[in-house]
Amino acid sequence: MKIFILNGPNLNLLGIREPSIYGSKGFSDYFEELIKSFPSIELNYFQSNHEGELIDKLHEVGFSCDGIVLNAGAYTHTSVAIGDAISAINTPVVEVHISNVYARESFRHHSFLAKNCKGVICGFGFDSYRLAIQSFIS
Amino acid sequence: MKIFILNGPNLNLLGIREPSIYGSKGFSDYFEELIKSFPSIELNYFQSNHEGELIDKLHEVGFSCDGIVLNAGAYTHTSVAIGDAISAINTPVVEVHISNVYARESFRHHSFLAKNCKGVICGFGFDSYRLAIQSFIS
Amino acid sequence: MKIFILNGPNLNLLGIREPSIYGSKGFSDYFEELIKSFPSIELNYFQSNHEGELIDKLHEVGFSCDGIVLNAGAYTHTSVAIGDAISAINTPVVEVHISNVYARESFRHHSFLAKNCKGVICGFGFDSYRLAIQSFIS
Amino acid sequence: MKIFILNGPNLNLLGIREPSIYGSKGFSDYFEELIKSFPSIELNYFQSNHEGELIDKLHEVGFSCDGIVLNAGAYTHTSVAIGDAISAINTPVVEVHISNVYARESFRHHSFLAKNCKGVICGFGFDSYRLAIQSFIS
Amino acid sequence: MKIFILNGPNLNLLGIREPSIYGSKGFSDYFEELIKSFPSIELNYFQSNHEGELIDKLHEVGFSCDGIVLNAGAYTHTSVAIGDAISAINTPVVEVHISNVYARESFRHHSFLAKNCKGVICGFGFDSYRLAIQSFIS
Amino acid sequence: MKIFILNGPNLNLLGIREPSIYGSKGFSDYFEELIKSFPSIELNYFQSNHEGELIDKLHEVGFSCDGIVLNAGAYTHTSVAIGDAISAINTPVVEVHISNVYARESFRHHSFLAKNCKGVICGFGFDSYRLAIQSFIS
Amino acid sequence: MKIFILNGPNLNLLGIREPSIYGSKGFSDYFEELIKSFPSIELNYFQSNHEGELIDKLHEVGFSCDGIVLNAGAYTHTSVAIGDAISAINTPVVEVHISNVYARESFRHHSFLAKNCKGVICGFGFDSYRLAIQSFIS
Amino acid sequence: MKIFILNGPNLNLLGIREPSIYGSKGFSDYFEELIKSFPSIELNYFQSNHEGELIDKLHEVGFSCDGIVLNAGAYTHTSVAIGDAISAINTPVVEVHISNVYARESFRHHSFLAKNCKGVICGFGFDSYRLAIQSFIS
Amino acid sequence: MKIFILNGPNLNLLGIREPSIYGSKGFSDYFEELIKSFPSIELNYFQSNHEGELIDKLHEVGFSCDGIVLNAGAYTHTSVAIGDAISAINTPVVEVHISNVYARESFRHHSFLAKNCKGVICGFGFDSYRLAIQSFIS
Amino acid sequence: MKIFILNGPNLNLLGIREPSIYGSKGFSDYFEELIKSFPSIELNYFQSNHEGELIDKLHEVGFSCDGIVLNAGAYTHTSVAIGDAISAINTPVVEVHISNVYARESFRHHSFLAKNCKGVICGFGFDSYRLAIQSFIS
Amino acid sequence: MKIFILNGPNLNLLGIREPSIYGSKGFSDYFEELIKSFPSIELNYFQSNHEGELIDKLHEVGFSCDGIVLNAGAYTHTSVAIGDAISAINTPVVEVHISNVYARESFRHHSFLAKNCKGVICGFGFDSYRLAIQSFIS
Amino acid sequence: MKIFILNGPNLNLLGIREPSIYGSKGFSDYFEELIKSFPSIELNYFQSNHEGELIDKLHEVGFSCDGIVLNAGAYTHTSVAIGDAISAINTPVVEVHISNVYARESFRHHSFLAKNCKGVICGFGFDSYRLAIQSFIS
Repeated sequence: MKIFILNGPNLNLLGIREPSIYGSKGFSDYFEELIKSFPSIELNYFQSNHEGELIDKLHEVGFSCDGIVLNAGAYTHTSVAIGDAISAINTPVVEVHISNVYARESFRHHSFLAKNCKGVICGFGFDSYRLAIQSFIS
Repeated sequence: MKIFILNGPNLNLLGIREPSIYGSKGFSDYFEELIKSFPSIELNYFQSNHEGELIDKLHEVGFSCDGIVLNAGAYTHTSVAIGDAISAINTPVVEVHISNVYARESFRHHSFLAKNCKGVICGFGFDSYRLAIQSFIS
Repeated sequence: MKIFILNGPNLNLLGIREPSIYGSKGFSDYFEELIKSFPSIELNYFQSNHEGELIDKLHEVGFSCDGIVLNAGAYTHTSVAIGDAISAINTPVVEVHISNVYARESFRHHSFLAKNCKGVICGFGFDSYRLAIQSFIS
Repeated sequence: MKIFILNGPNLNLLGIREPSIYGSKGFSDYFEELIKSFPSIELNYFQSNHEGELIDKLHEVGFSCDGIVLNAGAYTHTSVAIGDAISAINTPVVEVHISNVYARESFRHHSFLAKNCKGVICGFGFDSYRLAIQSFIS
Repeated sequence: MKIFILNGPNLNLLGIREPSIYGSKGFSDYFEELIKSFPSIELNYFQSNHEGELIDKLHEVGFSCDGIVLNAGAYTHTSVAIGDAISAINTPVVEVHISNVYARESFRHHSFLAKNCKGVICGFGFDSYRLAIQSFIS
Repeated sequence: MKIFILNGPNLNLLGIREPSIYGSKGFSDYFEELIKSFPSIELNYFQSNHEGELIDKLHEVGFSCDGIVLNAGAYTHTSVAIGDAISAINTPVVEVHISNVYARESFRHHSFLAKNCKGVICGFGFDSYRLAIQSFIS
Repeated sequence: MKIFILNGPNLNLLGIREPSIYGSKGFSDYFEELIKSFPSIELNYFQSNHEGELIDKLHEVGFSCDGIVLNAGAYTHTSVAIGDAISAINTPVVEVHISNVYARESFRHHSFLAKNCKGVICGFGFDSYRLAIQSFIS
Repeated sequence: MKIFILNGPNLNLLGIREPSIYGSKGFSDYFEELIKSFPSIELNYFQSNHEGELIDKLHEVGFSCDGIVLNAGAYTHTSVAIGDAISAINTPVVEVHISNVYARESFRHHSFLAKNCKGVICGFGFDSYRLAIQSFIS
Repeated sequence: MKIFILNGPNLNLLGIREPSIYGSKGFSDYFEELIKSFPSIELNYFQSNHEGELIDKLHEVGFSCDGIVLNAGAYTHTSVAIGDAISAINTPVVEVHISNVYARESFRHHSFLAKNCKGVICGFGFDSYRLAIQSFIS
Repeated sequence: MKIFILNGPNLNLLGIREPSIYGSKGFSDYFEELIKSFPSIELNYFQSNHEGELIDKLHEVGFSCDGIVLNAGAYTHTSVAIGDAISAINTPVVEVHISNVYARESFRHHSFLAKNCKGVICGFGFDSYRLAIQSFIS
Repeated sequence: MKIFILNGPNLNLLGIREPSIYGSKGFSDYFEELIKSFPSIELNYFQSNHEGELIDKLHEVGFSCDGIVLNAGAYTHTSVAIGDAISAINTPVVEVHISNVYARESFRHHSFLAKNCKGVICGFGFDSYRLAIQSFIS
Repeated sequence: MKIFILNGPNLNLLGIREPSIYGSKGFSDYFEELIKSFPSIELNYFQSNHEGELIDKLHEVGFSCDGIVLNAGAYTHTSVAIGDAISAINTPVVEVHISNVYARESFRHHSFLAKNCKGVICGFGFDSYRLAIQSFIS
């Protein structure tokens, strides 16, 4: 089973930005833990701040792997193009968010991606990714 | 560890309504499976079509159990009072939906509960409940 | 043929409230007349001010009787849950209103129920119920 | 008793348009049936695709006949002028629709006519006309 | 000097409709008075309930007469086409209303015509026409 | 003189919820003080989390007592049905709120009840109830 | 007959501001002409840039003179208080504008005054004032 | 204890305007009664139709007296500046209205002041002021 | 192959209105050129300022010819009835506009017709018609 | 004559995605056909999923070639920056869409590009490109 | 070179209000510093809480001095009249704000003045004034 | 002191695009002048049409330099992601615009960046950059 994790803009700063709040663990460290937690799954990871690169990557992996876990960050709320890419590929996509976006600014309540995704998981910190992977297993 | 599952209006009809589509398994059968899947957790379940009874139950269990999994059904989109109840109790609440509400009518995209919940999980069928329970374990 | 009449909030006050305007005839008296007008139909009647009880009743009768005449009163304009209940049951529902809701405040112009009903009849006083029953006969 | 039936734009195509769906019975055939069903009522019928002709006809018959059954079709949703005409005449008008307009596009949910009408009946197919006539008898 | 008065839908009913309120004087009688009040002006008058006929008439007289007084009635609030016609002709148009439209329903507050007219006069009863003619003289 | 105090959803938690903030005095204790402050008034009190029970109670006491002090909590902002109940009964109702609802989320700024009430008092803590009772005395 | 002309903010600059466009005639010069045109009418004039002074003046003259011609300038679109003042006094008020406000920015299309005025005249340059005075004579 | 009563635009007309409706008692007479009702409180009163004078007065008394009762009239709905002034001073302000503003036009339902005030009291006629003073005593 | 060109309100003025801008060529002259450009196609043309006549014509030719090129002018933005007519007939319709409607007022950006048409072509002057005819050939 | 065709996000998947629906012909194959159809035109083609690359390309070719055919895909509805780029270059741009965007979700009805383009062509499948090229020839 | 600084409502309280936050330096002290920083410029200063006085002052100095630095405070968001005054005078105006208004309530994001000003500077504390003066020098 | 200037989409065309309007000086020339004006500051400059590259650059320089001057061009109005990047870095950012964006289309009035910036400066041509640099010095 092959699952791809795709992170969008500003998520490369996790662990660097405000460590007293977010902790000193970047997503790479967490990704190592994930690989150990799911030894039977081939996990891959890609991050980009570029909307176009996220679309390119969805096209690249979206016809071969078994599941995509997508945290599109701020592009969740503005990108019709990523929403179209999700709808064009074959692999099911689960939208995840680290924070509870519904407890933040109102412009973060709308997602252009969700209606084309299999499901949405938000608010559980890094664990949102783990739950998303589990959703593909069951 | 004690977790309470709370289902709102019309969810008592699962398994009865349109079995060719939703299958003949009601939520009670699924609940039996959940109990077996999580033998170390004390799971309880309550369903009501009454907004007031859901609030009463949140008050009753919301100061003693360790987690609440809440599928408030249609009240998700109209009940400020349930949202207030979630904010008034101590136990963290995870909002779940069986279907992907973002792929349905636009009036189902807004939740009065989400901002007071720990997180939201939707679109994974009955598995949304399983993932919510797992979110309390990790 | 079995038809169920379901009245929502505040409709129990008909005949008591402002008799100089609405007359001294309550809905019970009118229901007696309806029974006489349609001797070949088994007519039943239930009223509640509780949203949840209306949903419970729709579930209870919605898989066995031949038609439901529903005046959901103010819940017409706020209850996604009753709308979902109508869509979940098998019996066709006709939405009725005693007054012409379109000639009243603008928040009474929208119905969360109508799209799931067979049809809508409003503005004919108590006769709205009689016309709804006739719509099931033809 | 004299009742006038007034049909608006595109309703002349009933029976011609998509017969596999709407059947091969045009409104004229149905009108013949209506005349037989209500032998004691003088029924008349007029159809036009012109907003102005509908207003002219409302003026012409609106001070002499006992009831008007009006299906203004798409003008229901755009014509303030027909709404004004209904309010200017003496004969009560019942607004009817063949389909359940609330189950269609959102721009069909608003009526400029309803608040000036006696009542509204929609969703019962051709029977909406029959129920409207019955509303004048009782 | 040639001035054309153009009246839109339902204005033919003035004097007939609710005489206890609007008086028994129709627009024709008032038009006779206007002719006497302005002996040096060639006044003409046309009324139609048809949006298309009002446009036809604006085209017909809009390149030769010196002023047009237009009471487009309900079409004021819905007709982009009449607004375009006013902008296409050479003769200046003054929009008039008998009643104070700002003291009525909110959908009567917007005019699709006003921005293409020379000016607007409303609220002075039949005198709105007299003031409009005077606006062409000074 | 008979005055009825009616409290809506979640107000049963006063004194229990977050005592460091709201104090350890529940509404029952405050109600005892009120009775002492107004010895000549017969004060009664009822609380429910159920919209329907609040409507039932308004019907029950709304034709006999002299004043109703209503804190409908979150139902203030969503219940057309309670608004209708207030308008259907004879006893004048004063809407109260403990907190200043205008300093909270924008969805708490609109009340479906206020236009049918005698007046509104908000922002004075428990004293909002005392002022409401005084408004019936003067 | 006594008529009062009241001008609001920035109208004192007429004749000074952009004379190549608005001409070099200030309102005072035009007022002299008006006095000559209506020798039998006692005309008075007041201008202020202060919302409060306009309200004070409406109170002062609004119970004694026969008509008020009010160009409230930009306050037309923002002042609920001037609208209330018009409604509180006895003298009828005619709202005038020099320019056609409907051909300008959309925030100039709404008037808080119009519904409380006798009528509205706009778009005729200084002649809007003359027509307003004539509306009081007829 | 020193309490200041501040009245805004058009409230100087109370007692003069429509005495058959509002009675012949102006606010000054009522103020005399208030002084007698609260002998231990130093009451002062100021009225202005000028937004700026109301701000000046709030600055003047807002650092020394113990409470301000403010009926800002129509400025309630339009003045961000008075709202800022309330937030800048030390003395708590209670917003009052004589009428039930929620039963009037919708543009009177929004207050720019309320969120910065201690509380709001409306709908009790002149008694709104008395209740506001009592709110400072308790 | 038979193609029908249908022009709506005010398009009869092309060539007459503002010739220095629009040129002195009316649509009739252009239509002659079109006939020469497409010798193998039977081209017909109809213009009306009446919404109802446009609907009548769509009904008349909409079951026999091979394509309809429709410039509904201002009715594009207001006519639900023409939109319904397009959906009721069999012949595919291409919506055209001479000007780029998206570079004009915002009320011209919405079309009630487009969703029922085969396609939309706008902004190419008279050439929009030529391109629409070519779209039927390929 | 040099014409540039520019395709935006996800259009690289044509021919791969859902071949049973869209056919197995990718845009490259169609582009070969276009080159043969217009032998006298120098046609070039570029596709990117990156908003910034589309802007870069518009800058690169927008001062030298004779026409640009732009299908910006989902960026049509979200990119103010591409709209600005079109307005900054000299070459006229025609906006094309393969599908009829007006028959799809409402967020696809608005274009940030159209007002800066020469014209818009949509709904004709791949032929939309052919018609766009023809619009530059005539 | 003559530059005028104009401050609007509540800005007279700087230095008095909440000194622990805003510091004990009033605007007068800062103005003294400004005079020293720009010895070659004749700087003048005026503050008022009255919208009308700000308009009067703009008229008085707006045809003679070289630049106006305007902090209209809360009137920025509500005053069409001050916006008109800026547009009527000759002197260029720079709008300044001490705080970053975009990080505050949404009703502070809109300015009725900005479109008529030369530019806007906000968020730099008292330094916003210094930068505005520098903008006139370069 | 190190300050970074970051320019967004289409700003590379300054000096090339419409030189009769914008002048023949590109931003590079102006940047040379800036370096000379501020000899004690280390100034750097980067431009990109790619949203992702602007985010990458903010991450790269946003933890080491002392100030960032950002003209995000059209991305100002659409990019939640750049707004998040500004909030994630340590260096304060000043948003600048060459033109007065408030005097342009309404979709340019909203900024997703401003609330996370130190301040905003717009409307002063190239001088907006100079003023922004000065804001870091004082």
